[in-house]
Amino acid sequence: MVKNLMKEFESIIDLWSPKIISEVNDVYVKIAKIQGDFDMHTHLEEDELFYIVKGNLIMQYDSYSVKLNEGDIHVVKKGESHKPIPKEECWVLLIENKSTKHTGEITNQYTKAIEDQLR
Amino acid sequence: MVKNLMKEFESIIDLWSPKIISEVNDVYVKIAKIQGDFDMHTHLEEDELFYIVKGNLIMQYDSYSVKLNEGDIHVVKKGESHKPIPKEECWVLLIENKSTKHTGEITNQYTKAIEDQLR
Repeated sequence: MVKNLMKEFESIIDLWSPKIISEVNDVYVKIAKIQGDFDMHTHLEEDELFYIVKGNLIMQYDSYSVKLNEGDIHVVKKGESHKPIPKEECWVLLIENKSTKHTGEITNQYTKAIEDQLR
Repeated sequence: MVKNLMKEFESIIDLWSPKIISEVNDVYVKIAKIQGDFDMHTHLEEDELFYIVKGNLIMQYDSYSVKLNEGDIHVVKKGESHKPIPKEECWVLLIENKSTKHTGEITNQYTKAIEDQLR
């Protein structure tokens, strides 16, 4: 099976709604369009990789922040409380363990079950 | 830490010489510039994800082949004998388990130890 990254992005309408586009071993590759504010959250046991496909964002941690521009790769280490803040619409690719919940230990209006992320 | 995908590619000189640019949980993200012929090989226990950053290639399996163009994502499933054939220089991003050897069960002139892939 072959998937094209840009075509997959074209199919996404909702913000903050990750879509699983591939799986490799114990990992899901997800994409999402994000914009605006999000809740601080933590993945206690899993790192989470962000690749900025389009746009930019600030990754806010408790005591510092990191600016991520198009083409940048950044790993949020397990246990680090964080939230992405994209002022404008930003397209991200995520590499996460299959067990990772995209809103971490919290549940909010964006929390989406894995079955729904596979659609 | 932030890495930029295109800058990482600029640092690569040798063909068929994967460079690890990130790690997330049990997975390495690697990039490579590849061109020409390669040996058929198999990863017995691990899937291997190919994302075509630039150019195109034919993924040759024993009894069929798949054309991969820029922006395409394709997973070689564990146990499947395969070789990528990029006629022109092609830039690929790979997602592999840390345990995966990039030339599979064979050793050839391109086989590169993990320590060297981390440089």
